[in-house]
Amino acid sequence: MKNLFNPFRRRFIRKASLGAAASLALPGIVSAAYAETKAGKITLAKDDVILFQGDSITDAGRKHDEANPNSSSALGGGYAFMAGSELLYKHADKNLKVYNKGISGNKVYQLAERWEADCLALKPNVLSVMIGVNDFWHTLTNNYTGTVDVYRKDLDALLGATKKALPGIKLVIGEPFAVKGIKAVDDKWYPTFDAYRRAAKELAAAHGAAFIPYQTVFDKAGQAAPGVYWTYDGVHPSLAGSQLMAHAWLAAVK
Amino acid sequence: MKNLFNPFRRRFIRKASLGAAASLALPGIVSAAYAETKAGKITLAKDDVILFQGDSITDAGRKHDEANPNSSSALGGGYAFMAGSELLYKHADKNLKVYNKGISGNKVYQLAERWEADCLALKPNVLSVMIGVNDFWHTLTNNYTGTVDVYRKDLDALLGATKKALPGIKLVIGEPFAVKGIKAVDDKWYPTFDAYRRAAKELAAAHGAAFIPYQTVFDKAGQAAPGVYWTYDGVHPSLAGSQLMAHAWLAAVK
Repeated sequence: MKNLFNPFRRRFIRKASLGAAASLALPGIVSAAYAETKAGKITLAKDDVILFQGDSITDAGRKHDEANPNSSSALGGGYAFMAGSELLYKHADKNLKVYNKGISGNKVYQLAERWEADCLALKPNVLSVMIGVNDFWHTLTNNYTGTVDVYRKDLDALLGATKKALPGIKLVIGEPFAVKGIKAVDDKWYPTFDAYRRAAKELAAAHGAAFIPYQTVFDKAGQAAPGVYWTYDGVHPSLAGSQLMAHAWLAAVK
Repeated sequence: MKNLFNPFRRRFIRKASLGAAASLALPGIVSAAYAETKAGKITLAKDDVILFQGDSITDAGRKHDEANPNSSSALGGGYAFMAGSELLYKHADKNLKVYNKGISGNKVYQLAERWEADCLALKPNVLSVMIGVNDFWHTLTNNYTGTVDVYRKDLDALLGATKKALPGIKLVIGEPFAVKGIKAVDDKWYPTFDAYRRAAKELAAAHGAAFIPYQTVFDKAGQAAPGVYWTYDGVHPSLAGSQLMAHAWLAAVK
């Protein structure tokens, strides 16, 4: 494993790798991804209610009928659980409430259908939305006919309506990502899928949202361990990949 | 919330708390607990197999019939999952395998009964054992008649047999802890329960194990947020408490 971003550190690692070392590279990956994508950040405040929304990557096997915030089973076994736990630990003085309402298979229009109950009713101060991989993927596998323009228009409308209903809400947009060459993700994905990533980034900027550059993060992580170490099918993260995402999410908090 | 350990930083925090700040205190809590207890540490190596063993605190709702390492559901929703995920992320170059075989309600003799299948057969290079709260608690609630001497003798024998079967194994002993005044934990626990903590610490030293000073960690965390923020019943950690434990566990890795 090499450290790829800092010539000084690279020299240090080369020396140290005679022994153990080199695990230093990972935090570097997340900060390098942020530096490269100039992603925005948010600030947490006391009593913030934090809501994670998205598809299976966010859902991660959570118990759908568990309604309490800060509950292990309600947060699932993925990045939302990991990032949420770290927030509760690190900001013990802030009385945070953390929810996860991701649902497997969701596309953006399916978020919209359940937005009243699964977002607005919870009155989040921080809303994290990661959606889009199914909006593309299901055109290959499920005869879904939505295009990137539908995705962009629907997500734009959803974010706009949310800001109107919950003035002052802090938005976090997670970039849809895929790791090429692993199982589900082949040449048929490109270049079309890249347009969904761009749309998410442009909407983040347009809505003043923080943006989590997951694609860049996973691309860079692939230099530390093979892609399949981070995602077993090109779309869903492994445990290591989920923790990578959690670190990337947490880096969006100033 | 105050930062309690560094006069310089305390001054800084006092200034900064006019605005936001103060979440800095938590990492300080873990390192201060280690400094105070002079706990030993371990070093990870490539291909290490890491096994978490213990009671309900370790179990944390894991899926008992899921046998694969590095599996979200097999690791449960507690500190073992959190620490394991961070290890897999941070040491992506080491090809680690992480297992959790904690079982709710276990006392040390119950670990011994299932040790062949749930420890030795997995051939761990790193074994983390956190056991003891039930060895005491069940004397109050379940007519269990084991004493601290039984606990010490059984745990000593278990660790000795493990080192014999798996030479070179790196041991991590987690201190049994309780937070006084919260639900299950009342005056009846003291001073007897403290003897179990001391026994675990002495056995860690005798067996050359790293020792995680959870009691000191939770005591200090109580200065950052009320005890019930970290453990809802005095024994089982909340999500914030689990992440606190994970950070304490990770601090045992050099």
